[in-house]
Amino acid sequence: MEFDRGLPFLIQADNVARYEQGHVFILDRRKYPQKIEYVDCANYRAVAQAIFDMVTQSYGPWLAAAYGMVSAARDIKDMKPEAARLSLSTAADVLANARPTTSHFQKRHVQSILDVCLDALQKGEDVEHKAYQYVVQLCEKRYNADRQIGKHAASLLPDGARILTQCFAETLIGYTLLEARLAGNEVSLYCPETRPYLQGARLTASMAVDMGIPTTVITDNMPAFLMSQGKVDVFACAADVVTLDGYVVNKIGTFQIALAAHYHKIPFYVLRDPSTNNPTIKAIEIEERDPLESMSFFGQRTTKEGVQGWYPAFDITPPHLVGAVVTSKGIYSPWELNQSWGK
Amino acid sequence: MEFDRGLPFLIQADNVARYEQGHVFILDRRKYPQKIEYVDCANYRAVAQAIFDMVTQSYGPWLAAAYGMVSAARDIKDMKPEAARLSLSTAADVLANARPTTSHFQKRHVQSILDVCLDALQKGEDVEHKAYQYVVQLCEKRYNADRQIGKHAASLLPDGARILTQCFAETLIGYTLLEARLAGNEVSLYCPETRPYLQGARLTASMAVDMGIPTTVITDNMPAFLMSQGKVDVFACAADVVTLDGYVVNKIGTFQIALAAHYHKIPFYVLRDPSTNNPTIKAIEIEERDPLESMSFFGQRTTKEGVQGWYPAFDITPPHLVGAVVTSKGIYSPWELNQSWGK
Repeated sequence: MEFDRGLPFLIQADNVARYEQGHVFILDRRKYPQKIEYVDCANYRAVAQAIFDMVTQSYGPWLAAAYGMVSAARDIKDMKPEAARLSLSTAADVLANARPTTSHFQKRHVQSILDVCLDALQKGEDVEHKAYQYVVQLCEKRYNADRQIGKHAASLLPDGARILTQCFAETLIGYTLLEARLAGNEVSLYCPETRPYLQGARLTASMAVDMGIPTTVITDNMPAFLMSQGKVDVFACAADVVTLDGYVVNKIGTFQIALAAHYHKIPFYVLRDPSTNNPTIKAIEIEERDPLESMSFFGQRTTKEGVQGWYPAFDITPPHLVGAVVTSKGIYSPWELNQSWGK
Repeated sequence: MEFDRGLPFLIQADNVARYEQGHVFILDRRKYPQKIEYVDCANYRAVAQAIFDMVTQSYGPWLAAAYGMVSAARDIKDMKPEAARLSLSTAADVLANARPTTSHFQKRHVQSILDVCLDALQKGEDVEHKAYQYVVQLCEKRYNADRQIGKHAASLLPDGARILTQCFAETLIGYTLLEARLAGNEVSLYCPETRPYLQGARLTASMAVDMGIPTTVITDNMPAFLMSQGKVDVFACAADVVTLDGYVVNKIGTFQIALAAHYHKIPFYVLRDPSTNNPTIKAIEIEERDPLESMSFFGQRTTKEGVQGWYPAFDITPPHLVGAVVTSKGIYSPWELNQSWGK
């Protein structure tokens, strides 16, 4: 793609997911950087399963689900209109609900592709081709919006900022680092490893060293002590959802880092456009995943028989711990989103 | 041993370390519970190396170093008195300084065994035998003191307390659970896995399930969210050092859990007699270990080439985050230790 120039391998669009003749190839981020492998999804159901299995995460499911719709559009070629409509709607449902915490967001996203498909179907156009073109447009639009977020975020960073992040904020942290660098700011990055999947150690850190950013990985129990040693200037990460009442839903661990940042008077910047589908935090369901993940590592069990596990995938940070929500339209207080965002 | 009845396998004295004809056998806690293996240390230098290599930790180094002195006492059998004294003093130095953060504590401990050795040497007694007898006495005394701490701690627990701990507090958490159980209190335990060595997942959780305590392992980024969900009544752990000005030095991660507990109004109880060798926090050196540990897991590298790591073994929790210091003599405020402890 043209729009992702300057970004490292891991977050270039074609390396997140790409579409080829009904198949969606998704980079298996569970194995990166130890292995570079793509999961070959032959249809939209396989895409939904891959999203559920966390083959990809962060923005990955957004692009994978979009290509899943393109694959579904290919499947309807020989169907009658009524069956085709039903088939496309089913695909949209399955793809949007692959993971509950982000289903609101994905639903709207997938619905817009469904609308394009249904419109093309009615006009007798090539539905697959129309859908593909639309997804590429969406993707370009998103990368451009993320670049804006990166620019705004970079404007908040002091010279030589030592940034602590959490999990893998993908293009959002990628563009923030890129824009800081373009502005001549020699920033560095601390990545908590982000158990159980190690997105911080494996993905964020790999992306950052590929950009030439000095990068240090710590375990998830170190952020507060790191701050107490005066080694952090800014805590910045993305979010799976920012609600209009200013709550931040992000990878488990974000909340306790935000607490530690607040205690140490270190600003916490959230890189993400708020979700107009989520006026309040109340309707958000926090996904609980297989407890075994918290009791194993690279498939190896860490606990004795009889021990239980718990694995909430996300946590919730309240607005009073959030310094700013950095959006594609500029920098907002978490308290003003209800009034200002989207107006 | 007689004094450790009622405790599970992992924290019975002979399973921590045992002495046989110059050799010190130390349970390899890096491998437990996946494997039950003892590291065979043929002399005191091998014991110091094993302590540095974290074959054992928590109270393990205390017993291992003590037996290391017994082994050193065996080595001097054919030496002249002056050479014997020098050899024993060297052994005490090497053993006390195997790990810097606890060297103050270990120094006093090892010194007391050295004194017994030198006394026996002067009196022409069997130095090895005297030293061994003394170590067994010390061990009994310690287990009895820990049982007192456990009793006092159990008295603080509400009915059905859901306890969150950190790392492996060995006999201190073991006796707390045992005394709670004996008092008819059906407590349960949450163990953060405690990266990078997973003492929580592998040791604490194993010990607790062996006692029939309902035990749940979480990753190190979950404690704050666990608390926010109303699942924790008490945060209780041991400490490597409690200074007389009320600071708690314990396994990395303790500080940020204490911050989260404070935010959620959950009491934090530290199970440990304060260290009269440490009047203030100022002289404490926080040990930094091999950064590779934060970038690997069971020997498997998690990060890409070029990424750096950081591994401080301990952190520091200030007194205003500590609810109580539970000692063998009773329950203290962290603010009163300077005035009251040891008086």
